[in-house]
Amino acid sequence: MSEFDLIDRLKQIASPALPVLTGIGDDAAVTVHDGPTATSVDAVVEGVHFNLAWSSPLQIAQKAVGTALSDIAAMAADAGEVYVTLGVPAGSPRAFLEELTDGFAEASASLGAVLAGGDTVSSPVMFVSVTAVGRAPADEQLILRSGAREGDLVAVTGEFGGACAGLALLAQPELEEVIELSPGLREALVLRQLAPRPRLEAGRAMRGSGVSAMIDVSDGLAADLGHMARASGVAIEIDQNRVPVQEGVPEVADARGRDVVDMALAGGEDYELAFTLPPDALATVEGRIAPLGCGLSVIGKVLSGSGVTVAVAGRRESPPAGFDHFG
Amino acid sequence: MSEFDLIDRLKQIASPALPVLTGIGDDAAVTVHDGPTATSVDAVVEGVHFNLAWSSPLQIAQKAVGTALSDIAAMAADAGEVYVTLGVPAGSPRAFLEELTDGFAEASASLGAVLAGGDTVSSPVMFVSVTAVGRAPADEQLILRSGAREGDLVAVTGEFGGACAGLALLAQPELEEVIELSPGLREALVLRQLAPRPRLEAGRAMRGSGVSAMIDVSDGLAADLGHMARASGVAIEIDQNRVPVQEGVPEVADARGRDVVDMALAGGEDYELAFTLPPDALATVEGRIAPLGCGLSVIGKVLSGSGVTVAVAGRRESPPAGFDHFG
Repeated sequence: MSEFDLIDRLKQIASPALPVLTGIGDDAAVTVHDGPTATSVDAVVEGVHFNLAWSSPLQIAQKAVGTALSDIAAMAADAGEVYVTLGVPAGSPRAFLEELTDGFAEASASLGAVLAGGDTVSSPVMFVSVTAVGRAPADEQLILRSGAREGDLVAVTGEFGGACAGLALLAQPELEEVIELSPGLREALVLRQLAPRPRLEAGRAMRGSGVSAMIDVSDGLAADLGHMARASGVAIEIDQNRVPVQEGVPEVADARGRDVVDMALAGGEDYELAFTLPPDALATVEGRIAPLGCGLSVIGKVLSGSGVTVAVAGRRESPPAGFDHFG
Repeated sequence: MSEFDLIDRLKQIASPALPVLTGIGDDAAVTVHDGPTATSVDAVVEGVHFNLAWSSPLQIAQKAVGTALSDIAAMAADAGEVYVTLGVPAGSPRAFLEELTDGFAEASASLGAVLAGGDTVSSPVMFVSVTAVGRAPADEQLILRSGAREGDLVAVTGEFGGACAGLALLAQPELEEVIELSPGLREALVLRQLAPRPRLEAGRAMRGSGVSAMIDVSDGLAADLGHMARASGVAIEIDQNRVPVQEGVPEVADARGRDVVDMALAGGEDYELAFTLPPDALATVEGRIAPLGCGLSVIGKVLSGSGVTVAVAGRRESPPAGFDHFG
């Protein structure tokens, strides 16, 4: 399958829907929009972020597109266009590449985005680089990392540790001989790793709710709260007992001899949202998140100072080993 | 140098100029613009599009950013924002990565663009994926590939074969023992390969000039005219004696036992513009291009039918072997 065949296929499947006037097949895609756009770039690399032995082509596309749109969710923006650059090793099977290119369109559409452009290049290792564009009616509705203020609460959507536990199950199949997980529970952990779903609806629901800062959890909850604390010029303290842990994660952590809190705080790739808000905005935000079914947990508070600390049974200490290098 | 150090450096050097409200360091870059945007994605991969043995870090950045902005030039758009994703092998020297990240800002600024966002990922092979955004006051001012009409002339900016000849000189140093090239001529060919400059000024000058279709020459002149012919539903005939060949290319072609016309038509990576226009628009376009110093050559005409043919001394034949697979 040549590069031009692949681009043809991308062209056929890319949605011609407005606001994309000219999509794949010209030198550039043309869009017409007024108002602010949020643009994020991200990439996944074979052997680093995905593994051809574990992921279907659709799942590779879901992870690449999903992680890029997670940044758009964290801005409280609506999903707009998605652009994909695919690095393809020579000799990649045609059927695989067709499923992958179809997967970009499917993954984009399932998240309310439009696959608007793409390119392919030869590469010794497969990679997918995704540019995601989001929009909001006015720029003050976008939520940055830098708005956390002393006295705010720290909250998260969803549950943590699942993507890391799922990776452990995939990479160490022997673990499953010592862990008793129902097939449904195992599947949920593994899918968390292979095909993360960004919290676009939850992110958008924060718009105008009083949420002061927001970030998506890709590097790990403690690391990403560290990014937020640094951008906002504040300290963040979280209570480790309040961090919601996904079902099945304690069993996997146990079997690996790893602390479950460490797995939840440092594991990364959960693509939940972490955000701060004044206490008097909590009822509003809870009311908006409740119908979405993803859950909301208050896990800490914003203090003056810098850095992230983890309180254990009321006692403050540094983050556990394993993520303290994230600062 | 950790991923976060690199992102910090990108953040420091990325221009905070409007229209970028929030650049590197948040989840996404926020821009505010009315009107049409043209977005193109492209990537360069170590060992495929650049070679660490030949290119300085700044040249790698210049090639990555330059080739992406060449697509913006081919739309007749103004350069806007540039977003970079860098795949970094473990153990890459810190000084190299610093020069490379600085190079993205420098290369963008030198072409009138703003480095507005970036990300780094671990990768076994170095790659740079670039998203380039261009703008125009109105979408009808953007020039697509699909507007060529029977009776139009086919024209190009600049000269061809240089990037291919430069690559030959780099890859086969023994060639230089049999070719007598002045150091200045050699340098010009090699720089054409290592640090191509997109024709942004020439592209923009075509706006509203009557130019009916435009494409940048990345795959090779014959191949790219083929893309244009297909998008426009026409045939294109070019006169091989009218294709401008860069000085020094005939000597390199000779030494390699390759036909010079083949090298000019199929070599690729020259990043000139190829375009079509009605004959009565030629004087206008010539008048606009003349002050830019890049030259303009009429090399053929648009016919009914499909495909690209090359006329040799008035006789029409198929393209020479070596690019006929580009169809």
